[in-house]
Amino acid sequence: MRIGNKVYRSIWLEDERLLVIDQRRLPFRLEVMELESLDQAVYAIREMVVRGAPLIGVTAAWGMWLAARESPEVGWQEALKRASKLLKSTRPTAVNLEYALELCRKALGKAESREKAIEILKSVAEDFTEEEVECSRKIGEYGLALIREIYQRKGSAVNILTHCNAGWLATVDYGTATAPMYMAHDKGIPLHVWVDETRPRNQGARLTAFELGEHGVPFTLIVDNAGGHLMQQGKVDLVIVGSDRTTKQGDVANKIGTYLKALAAKDNDIPFYVALPTSTIDRSLDEGKNIKIEEREEKEITHMAGLDEQKQESCSVRISPKNSPVANPGFDVTPARLVSGLITEKGLCEASKKGIASLFESGE
Amino acid sequence: MRIGNKVYRSIWLEDERLLVIDQRRLPFRLEVMELESLDQAVYAIREMVVRGAPLIGVTAAWGMWLAARESPEVGWQEALKRASKLLKSTRPTAVNLEYALELCRKALGKAESREKAIEILKSVAEDFTEEEVECSRKIGEYGLALIREIYQRKGSAVNILTHCNAGWLATVDYGTATAPMYMAHDKGIPLHVWVDETRPRNQGARLTAFELGEHGVPFTLIVDNAGGHLMQQGKVDLVIVGSDRTTKQGDVANKIGTYLKALAAKDNDIPFYVALPTSTIDRSLDEGKNIKIEEREEKEITHMAGLDEQKQESCSVRISPKNSPVANPGFDVTPARLVSGLITEKGLCEASKKGIASLFESGE
Repeated sequence: MRIGNKVYRSIWLEDERLLVIDQRRLPFRLEVMELESLDQAVYAIREMVVRGAPLIGVTAAWGMWLAARESPEVGWQEALKRASKLLKSTRPTAVNLEYALELCRKALGKAESREKAIEILKSVAEDFTEEEVECSRKIGEYGLALIREIYQRKGSAVNILTHCNAGWLATVDYGTATAPMYMAHDKGIPLHVWVDETRPRNQGARLTAFELGEHGVPFTLIVDNAGGHLMQQGKVDLVIVGSDRTTKQGDVANKIGTYLKALAAKDNDIPFYVALPTSTIDRSLDEGKNIKIEEREEKEITHMAGLDEQKQESCSVRISPKNSPVANPGFDVTPARLVSGLITEKGLCEASKKGIASLFESGE
Repeated sequence: MRIGNKVYRSIWLEDERLLVIDQRRLPFRLEVMELESLDQAVYAIREMVVRGAPLIGVTAAWGMWLAARESPEVGWQEALKRASKLLKSTRPTAVNLEYALELCRKALGKAESREKAIEILKSVAEDFTEEEVECSRKIGEYGLALIREIYQRKGSAVNILTHCNAGWLATVDYGTATAPMYMAHDKGIPLHVWVDETRPRNQGARLTAFELGEHGVPFTLIVDNAGGHLMQQGKVDLVIVGSDRTTKQGDVANKIGTYLKALAAKDNDIPFYVALPTSTIDRSLDEGKNIKIEEREEKEITHMAGLDEQKQESCSVRISPKNSPVANPGFDVTPARLVSGLITEKGLCEASKKGIASLFESGE
């Protein structure tokens, strides 16, 4: 996707150097960071230089390649096992992270030497990156059909509301929830996106607004409180959000606040779609209420980081009374009954046991 | 209500000096400001030194007294007419402001001299202030019954969620939505309040958290996105919010985001009550969707004010990409079907035509 006049991915290899966009600096500064070692890959994931489940998975695969490059001639196998363990510990709840490391582990079965291991891991990381891009592209294609249909019926710009950042910055390219928007925009279908700020970490205001703006997609930033009102006013045609984990009956765990938007969409008869790679469907889980919700740190709520415009430097301010008790659940679960459908790389389906099962039965 | 060890009101007369708490400085500094002139009263309302419909009304009444004191011997009548017009223009949508000025105008009918006018206006302002306190106190008493009932059934602390600041800082004392909480707390009923941050102006994080904390009521600050999840988890027993304007069929205009919480309460079978003085019921209006919603300034969303803790001074940071388009509706309308009941100074009632009519028929 474009930033200014240049086309970017969120992670890429350039002359054997692994480069990522430092997402902590966005939207105020675009900084590219080189990850030179396993430790730097671990740092990048842990400190959220890179974030978003798909991108974390891809970074972990490349992290294994970095680990192999710096491993000793003797004991490289043990070094890679330690690397895998270390990478896994960075964000224990990310499904894609585990999946990526498992891919690497399996591929390494054939490696007879350190040199071969480096080669194999590079090829795994490259393939995994391209698969990830292809997955987002397909989600985009399937979601595009929904937007096109609304446009054909309505005859004017389609208003889409999204929450958090399930954008290309969270994947390698296109994004999940945003992929259909980029596709529609690039195909000339007029659309406009309502971007939820997404407190407390403001991924909407910081990242989705940045992404869409840089690529040229018309958008308007709103606070999380405003979505319901806009729906009541007939100003939203479609909601598309991402998902961190979806159960086999279609309950969707996603950024805190998603449930409230789903309720408002239902109350106003607005289609509410969830875009997700099927890799994030947890087929071991029936009910969303069994998903453990991460409680995040208090400072995300009591303080706010931003740009001091006079000094043009980052600055954090306290925005609540000193010593206020805080609760900060990171996700909520939207029950399947509120979800109009899922947009996956295997196609659209109902948010139900039957719908989800059909994705896997088709043999694709 | 208490701040530290001292009991305060939001506005009071001390040795003929009119004093208010400068709410722009809260929660980081408690500053008392004297309003010495009509211009200062206008400034206080316009710049939100004082805010909250009831407190604005009371400040306007005292503003008329200040205007009378500084009026010329000849032409004091015209000066007071100009003062009334000026005060009315400060916040054109506040119902209580109009009501207060109308009270002053009527009372002035009997004034034969400037001296008499000063005397009358002081008495009007004093009475209006005490009526306002009495109104909040009664809302508190009626709401207390609801909390007590839940406590008796549940046998442990009652968890109440509130949005924005319908607290004592928005009135003169007790508040509207908070009045039942203060009453219950002071009577020893254990309770705990979930305080919504209330983006974009953060009245929950800045004011409600401050109020409750200073008075000793247990609370936890959350982002606006979290309320639905807490309700799903069974962590909310009751929602109480305020109202800016309520129609005669019980539709409630209140701070943006209220509607989303009402939807979540309904979805989880949690009672959702609105506390309001009957003076904010607009009996000329049937349907809430006819209420005009104020669009507020962009900077409330693109920037965030807080305390730079190193320098211990206020600071504003930009929190979104430069030049992001923004929409900032200030209020939303919660339809009566989502409201369990209204808590007014005349008693509890259904949020319906019949319920609201009964308040006025009783002759109270």
